[in-house]
Amino acid sequence: MATQGQVITCKAAVAWEPNKPLVIEDVQVAPPQAGEVRIKILFTALCHTDAYTWGGKIICRNTAYTLFTLQDPEGLFPCILGHEAAGIVESVGEGVTDVQPGDHVIPCYQAECGECKFCKSGKTNLCGKIRAATGVGIMMNDRKSRFSVNGKPIYHFMGTSTFSQYTVVHDVSVAKIDPKAPLDKVCLLGCGVPTGLGAVWNTAKVEPGSIVAIFGLGTVGLAVAEGAKAAGASRIIGVDLDSKKFDVAKNFGATEFVNPKDHDKPIQQVLVDLTDGGVDYSFECIGNVSVMRAALECCHKGWGTSVIVGVAASGQEISTRPFQLVTGRVWKGTAFGGFKSRSQVPWLVDKYMKKEIKVDEYITHNLTLGEINKAFDLMHEGRCLRCVLAMDL
Amino acid sequence: MATQGQVITCKAAVAWEPNKPLVIEDVQVAPPQAGEVRIKILFTALCHTDAYTWGGKIICRNTAYTLFTLQDPEGLFPCILGHEAAGIVESVGEGVTDVQPGDHVIPCYQAECGECKFCKSGKTNLCGKIRAATGVGIMMNDRKSRFSVNGKPIYHFMGTSTFSQYTVVHDVSVAKIDPKAPLDKVCLLGCGVPTGLGAVWNTAKVEPGSIVAIFGLGTVGLAVAEGAKAAGASRIIGVDLDSKKFDVAKNFGATEFVNPKDHDKPIQQVLVDLTDGGVDYSFECIGNVSVMRAALECCHKGWGTSVIVGVAASGQEISTRPFQLVTGRVWKGTAFGGFKSRSQVPWLVDKYMKKEIKVDEYITHNLTLGEINKAFDLMHEGRCLRCVLAMDL
Repeated sequence: MATQGQVITCKAAVAWEPNKPLVIEDVQVAPPQAGEVRIKILFTALCHTDAYTWGGKIICRNTAYTLFTLQDPEGLFPCILGHEAAGIVESVGEGVTDVQPGDHVIPCYQAECGECKFCKSGKTNLCGKIRAATGVGIMMNDRKSRFSVNGKPIYHFMGTSTFSQYTVVHDVSVAKIDPKAPLDKVCLLGCGVPTGLGAVWNTAKVEPGSIVAIFGLGTVGLAVAEGAKAAGASRIIGVDLDSKKFDVAKNFGATEFVNPKDHDKPIQQVLVDLTDGGVDYSFECIGNVSVMRAALECCHKGWGTSVIVGVAASGQEISTRPFQLVTGRVWKGTAFGGFKSRSQVPWLVDKYMKKEIKVDEYITHNLTLGEINKAFDLMHEGRCLRCVLAMDL
Repeated sequence: MATQGQVITCKAAVAWEPNKPLVIEDVQVAPPQAGEVRIKILFTALCHTDAYTWGGKIICRNTAYTLFTLQDPEGLFPCILGHEAAGIVESVGEGVTDVQPGDHVIPCYQAECGECKFCKSGKTNLCGKIRAATGVGIMMNDRKSRFSVNGKPIYHFMGTSTFSQYTVVHDVSVAKIDPKAPLDKVCLLGCGVPTGLGAVWNTAKVEPGSIVAIFGLGTVGLAVAEGAKAAGASRIIGVDLDSKKFDVAKNFGATEFVNPKDHDKPIQQVLVDLTDGGVDYSFECIGNVSVMRAALECCHKGWGTSVIVGVAASGQEISTRPFQLVTGRVWKGTAFGGFKSRSQVPWLVDKYMKKEIKVDEYITHNLTLGEINKAFDLMHEGRCLRCVLAMDL
């Protein structure tokens, strides 16, 4: 391409500082260095992790860093947010062989190098190769950013920074997908939907006949419901403070609904009573540490497993009495649903193309990059599942 | 036998109230009713759960109830403590077919009925059949105690009450063992040793080559070391505040030792540094909620699993930051090491007879029932692993 090796100036939504709306800027995107890929982003969705950030809740923005860096986070501004997107490779740096210009790709905030201790363990989807750089908003090669505005560096975010018409990512963070897949839909397979499906399939490994409780019926919670249905769960109990969400949740597989507001008893007791002793699997899809406790404690003695999917505010802690675990409950968590990104995102795209998993149904709004602050407003209003942005102004 | 169907008057150590030494009393032991077994106890060991009780730490006595009843405990006095013992069946009640007078048995505080939801789940060793009675110190049949002193009922404890020359237990709590096994040794297979071995083999499922950390090198911690060695762990790191325990721990399989007192850093950080990112499996064998947290947090990101084996004081809580779980650590617990009591205690006895597991090596003291208060003193002094009591005065 004509742009190969050149700095590209394009539009991006820059988060200059917490508590301030994003600003559409002309951003200079440097060419990819060795092991890097420059991607033309065509569609990006908004995830609550981004939304929290926009709202200035730095504690929550940090949670994205937690997920991403697997360590205690620090907010880094200015930066370009965004981590759920799809695009086309514009150019590649030296040594990049897995993708080439023109490939359709999904940038992945969980890398997969295949070579590090994590990737080779066979036990986790976390990858350690580029974490030291991406955790602090830079690229491995020269420990600098590829983004700048009038010469001022702008940090990367989660190794993806998809709120930009062009972004640069590490090659181990790029999943090459079927070019026939509609990018305005499969961009969702970069975060929320796989997180929910994988929490069920990979982390909990829900068996047929299981009783499942889902706390929080946003995109991730609905994907948990869908995953549980596919796994053959016999009862899928949605728990949410907003009863209106149940109609939508039914379409994704939920069979029952409990609103904690309708009960005087603690929600864990309500669920234990409703299920003859507790659920087999529970999923916390909110990021609230009190709900995480309830999700554990509504599990059946002897075997109930609770998976933390939501990401809590920085510094908050989960607690319970140890006998909850001594009597057989298991407390786990999941990041990106345990999916290995480069290997399995393409597989998820294929499943979507074969109509084996939903994607379109999570998209409630379509806007443009220029309307990104409006998109965040929509998320805050609560009826929005996913808003997909085209990268126009 | 001549005693069949008769009340037996024998010696037992009665805990009349918390904070008071046990008193050797003439106790009347009623004959077993339907589904019950009266056992002549020949040897009983002391477990720390009993020791705590004697020390008047009601909070800790409650922990035994927690383990046993799987619910919030209440202290019930007067009672006959003891739950790690061996003996010979004296008589059986109506309908008891699995054991008969003369059988050598180990009474088990975890029942195994084979019929309840728990037993049939294939997922847990907990049994629900008799819990409603044993949790409150009585027998299922008539919801009364079989023990009395001068007509005053004395509560059962953990369904076993082995600090008595004769005890009555539910048939689902009796493991029939090889009559050639020395009862003064295999009595230990009623609690601590299986708890440690099973935490490794059943709950954690430690694989060959794993790095293991053990917090607390008492009987249970040493049994964890032994189990980990048998499972092929490559490094077995003992953690204890008393460095003198390491010499003993080496004999059970520990390969390294860390005393938190020798370090300024938190012990979890010490272990993470020592193991290139954390251990694969950790075991808390103390019952201290702060140590439980350290045991979780010293686990490797992505897969490290921590098993709570120790029983904490009632009302205490464990805490951690949820990202510890979201980044792949798993928090579990174990009761009786996940062993199914009636099925697997005989198998453990056989393993001992084949010299595949240690038992003798945990016995540091031998006393008599009449010396039981002295035995508790020994436990409090800290150098005692297991003290086995013959049932003489």
